[in-house]
Amino acid sequence: MAHSINPEAEKLLDKEFKCLNAGFVRLIDFMGSDESIGQAARVSYGKGTKTVNEDRGLIRYLMRHRHTTPFEMVELKFHVKLPIFVARQWIRHRTANVNEYSGRYSVMKDEFYVPETGAIHYQSKSNMQGRAPENVPAELRHKVLEILTSTQRQTYAEYEQMVEEDIARELARIHLPLSLYTEWYWKIDLHNLFHFLALRLDRHAQYEIRVYAEAMAEITNTVAPMAWEAFEDYGLKAKTFSRLELEVLKQFFDPSKITKEYLESKGFGKREADEFLEKLEK
Amino acid sequence: MAHSINPEAEKLLDKEFKCLNAGFVRLIDFMGSDESIGQAARVSYGKGTKTVNEDRGLIRYLMRHRHTTPFEMVELKFHVKLPIFVARQWIRHRTANVNEYSGRYSVMKDEFYVPETGAIHYQSKSNMQGRAPENVPAELRHKVLEILTSTQRQTYAEYEQMVEEDIARELARIHLPLSLYTEWYWKIDLHNLFHFLALRLDRHAQYEIRVYAEAMAEITNTVAPMAWEAFEDYGLKAKTFSRLELEVLKQFFDPSKITKEYLESKGFGKREADEFLEKLEK
Amino acid sequence: MAHSINPEAEKLLDKEFKCLNAGFVRLIDFMGSDESIGQAARVSYGKGTKTVNEDRGLIRYLMRHRHTTPFEMVELKFHVKLPIFVARQWIRHRTANVNEYSGRYSVMKDEFYVPETGAIHYQSKSNMQGRAPENVPAELRHKVLEILTSTQRQTYAEYEQMVEEDIARELARIHLPLSLYTEWYWKIDLHNLFHFLALRLDRHAQYEIRVYAEAMAEITNTVAPMAWEAFEDYGLKAKTFSRLELEVLKQFFDPSKITKEYLESKGFGKREADEFLEKLEK
Amino acid sequence: MAHSINPEAEKLLDKEFKCLNAGFVRLIDFMGSDESIGQAARVSYGKGTKTVNEDRGLIRYLMRHRHTTPFEMVELKFHVKLPIFVARQWIRHRTANVNEYSGRYSVMKDEFYVPETGAIHYQSKSNMQGRAPENVPAELRHKVLEILTSTQRQTYAEYEQMVEEDIARELARIHLPLSLYTEWYWKIDLHNLFHFLALRLDRHAQYEIRVYAEAMAEITNTVAPMAWEAFEDYGLKAKTFSRLELEVLKQFFDPSKITKEYLESKGFGKREADEFLEKLEK
Repeated sequence: MAHSINPEAEKLLDKEFKCLNAGFVRLIDFMGSDESIGQAARVSYGKGTKTVNEDRGLIRYLMRHRHTTPFEMVELKFHVKLPIFVARQWIRHRTANVNEYSGRYSVMKDEFYVPETGAIHYQSKSNMQGRAPENVPAELRHKVLEILTSTQRQTYAEYEQMVEEDIARELARIHLPLSLYTEWYWKIDLHNLFHFLALRLDRHAQYEIRVYAEAMAEITNTVAPMAWEAFEDYGLKAKTFSRLELEVLKQFFDPSKITKEYLESKGFGKREADEFLEKLEK
Repeated sequence: MAHSINPEAEKLLDKEFKCLNAGFVRLIDFMGSDESIGQAARVSYGKGTKTVNEDRGLIRYLMRHRHTTPFEMVELKFHVKLPIFVARQWIRHRTANVNEYSGRYSVMKDEFYVPETGAIHYQSKSNMQGRAPENVPAELRHKVLEILTSTQRQTYAEYEQMVEEDIARELARIHLPLSLYTEWYWKIDLHNLFHFLALRLDRHAQYEIRVYAEAMAEITNTVAPMAWEAFEDYGLKAKTFSRLELEVLKQFFDPSKITKEYLESKGFGKREADEFLEKLEK
Repeated sequence: MAHSINPEAEKLLDKEFKCLNAGFVRLIDFMGSDESIGQAARVSYGKGTKTVNEDRGLIRYLMRHRHTTPFEMVELKFHVKLPIFVARQWIRHRTANVNEYSGRYSVMKDEFYVPETGAIHYQSKSNMQGRAPENVPAELRHKVLEILTSTQRQTYAEYEQMVEEDIARELARIHLPLSLYTEWYWKIDLHNLFHFLALRLDRHAQYEIRVYAEAMAEITNTVAPMAWEAFEDYGLKAKTFSRLELEVLKQFFDPSKITKEYLESKGFGKREADEFLEKLEK
Repeated sequence: MAHSINPEAEKLLDKEFKCLNAGFVRLIDFMGSDESIGQAARVSYGKGTKTVNEDRGLIRYLMRHRHTTPFEMVELKFHVKLPIFVARQWIRHRTANVNEYSGRYSVMKDEFYVPETGAIHYQSKSNMQGRAPENVPAELRHKVLEILTSTQRQTYAEYEQMVEEDIARELARIHLPLSLYTEWYWKIDLHNLFHFLALRLDRHAQYEIRVYAEAMAEITNTVAPMAWEAFEDYGLKAKTFSRLELEVLKQFFDPSKITKEYLESKGFGKREADEFLEKLEK
């Protein structure tokens, strides 16, 4: 097989997906496709090439059974501009390759994250690390914005002053706030990207990183649409029930009411229907 | 905190858990405990030490919400003797440290895996990579054992002959079958060990590696019993339902019938009960 | 930047590089080029695109100073057919993605590694894990080949017999020797590939894996020729001197004899010449 | 073998090594020792326990020949308090386990990095990402300190104000500068710690991270003194010469002048002496 041909994904190359007030995500390069996931899986089974339709079934089977290695055969490379506090969460994902703009080497640019007024929220009561849904009064929102932006302007001016006095850039930059923008190239395989997205598309993820995850979700869906569909069905939109929860489910739920015919009418494959019924057995 | 004190785990050190006909697993060293999982989690929350009971609740919360990094703070080191075909599956787990016996440097020992007669099965019809449950007739089982053992004896004799002729060991060893035993030291953190065990305790895992996983499960349960309990409840004994499966569940299941009181009577914590009801919302 | 264009590397796609008696390496896909190494490095410096000539200097600087992350931005995917004893060494490199032919799922093919007579050597006296350079008498070589091949034929026939009796494939395959061929897809980034090649091109590496490393070296040189040249100059053909060795070198070596002009005439860049003189300072 | 006994290292547990104005490194726990490096290496050779003296020779051999896996068998866990700009460099090392204080969950403390006046330098002319050695006039140093500290006070007061208004902590914290202190637990194996230290003890590393690396070097030297000595001799204090540099060295250097006796008088082992002479062969 030569390089994969995916005209939709090719069209996305270099396109800026704007994120927050001054950030972006761009797909810079990619390797592989739905087809190469199937191809890698088939090396395990010693079989030749198949139809596109069989690829979809195979990809869904792999995702459902957590056979993750074929998804590692697709690689995506992004160029991202993001605030440092977002970069600090992002970098915790260790299975990726990164080249970041260096504040030791270069002068940082005068660009800071400023939340839209709708993104300013109270501390959540129920979730110690989140935001409350209620609206913050306009006055307080303006006050927060005023604090953020005026100090951004001030610290950048002070940073510039130190740089002009020829103070080492690696020292001067420590003066800048976590809302400062940085940039990086970030490369990751599809399996690990799915893991990143599952965590960062979650409603418990901080709003500002979720915005990036949503842009990358759209890109990923274009690069490998069958894999994305399977990831949604068996990952993003799936739910896990604990031992205790399953006991309650089985108490209140009678699987005998559900026929295979019914399941197939709902879109289940034969094998998938069997697996479902098996899961609910008392 | 100094080294963790866990007398039960200390007693296990160096104890051989026999596996298959000539293999074993031994816990050689470990670092950390349930307590150090809590301790690492609390650095995130900036809180001091807590009671053992609070540790259990915290560990269960971490496991339920896939906050995996505190589990990485516990480390276990094993000495394992295992057949090469098992080692080949095992080594696919990349987040571990390994030192293996070298057949280039040393002469391989005359030890081979010979299945008990009960472990000899037909190819499964339903699972392309498994064994059928039916019994194989005694005659065929004996024939298989005879093939395996007589050729093991023969190839080892031929290997010895080549070694005696002073043929390079790295070459002579290629003559030996995949049933040959090897040994290694294998070190891994608790989070990645749980991942390994989830895959290798599964009924779809090959019987011969499952035997090792079961021995390691017992050891792990002793090193970090609260983490193990949480892993069972939210990992091993949990089940994931896909988007389609959830639609069917919601169709046939009326969560309004289930009160929080009922759930608490079944062992649910308050927060866990809320999370469960939320999951089943239409 | 769109997909990199490298017609020489494109021509290599799918081409079989034969290795040993029945193995091969094929480049299946790749992402990136010398240009994308420079591009990733420049994001750190906040600079725009440059000339090819500047790329070469930058790549050499990065390699010399062990700035490894830009090399991680290039990815290569190989299809490899190799004997299991080679696969066992290969898989020790953990920073790669792998999909291997499954002997649980599929019937193994009747293909075994048989060394050319020139590859049969005595055990090395000086290197406990290597081969002696002396020739082995023809008679002994024939004897070794006879042992290997006749038992390969025999065990494969016995394997086939068990498979025909419908014994589970995952069990029957344990009968086969380490000289059996397997196949896999193997994907890795350029930095980690260089690390793999440095170890496996080394004269202490086992001959049979070195053959594969040499084929992959040729492919890599085509995919990223400037990076390869830098890797040769600062990696493969470089040597490291210990603290003690440096003391002796400095005792016997007078760097004052060496002028910058002399070094530049030998191909040193200005900065590289300074760095060299600095290293040899007493 | 039971837990390693190393009274010197045990004494270090929990001891604060102060770093910068308000940071520290503490060893929280460790697993293994020089002895366990030897033990892991010996599993490869199939040999039993040895003398301490043989351990030293073996460890030096392993380090010299880049046999890195036995060093991965030792694990160290640190508690570190460090400024965020240092944490951002530190986290680039991916092969470690981390739990960090969460500014989403908890209120950040009022602690900032303030450089000692001696640490305030001009931008280096020769090294784009470093500091010049010359002293900065006292007046300018005071000005820099005044800028840093007055804005630290101001932004912390503004942060507190937002927190008191009940603005979500995850949002308020973006106001704080990169000089703010954070804390984490950080666990790593000895091989990867050596890699971290080689990069961060280097004179090109930023001064503020070097301070931490020096404290950790002292701790590591106590946990595994033989491994540390070998790391110094073959790593930290070794130098690598490129292909071109070796050509010049060989031109000006006559190894025939150096006898094995001379080398042994300088502390070389027999095997090491041979290896050195071989490296310098024309």
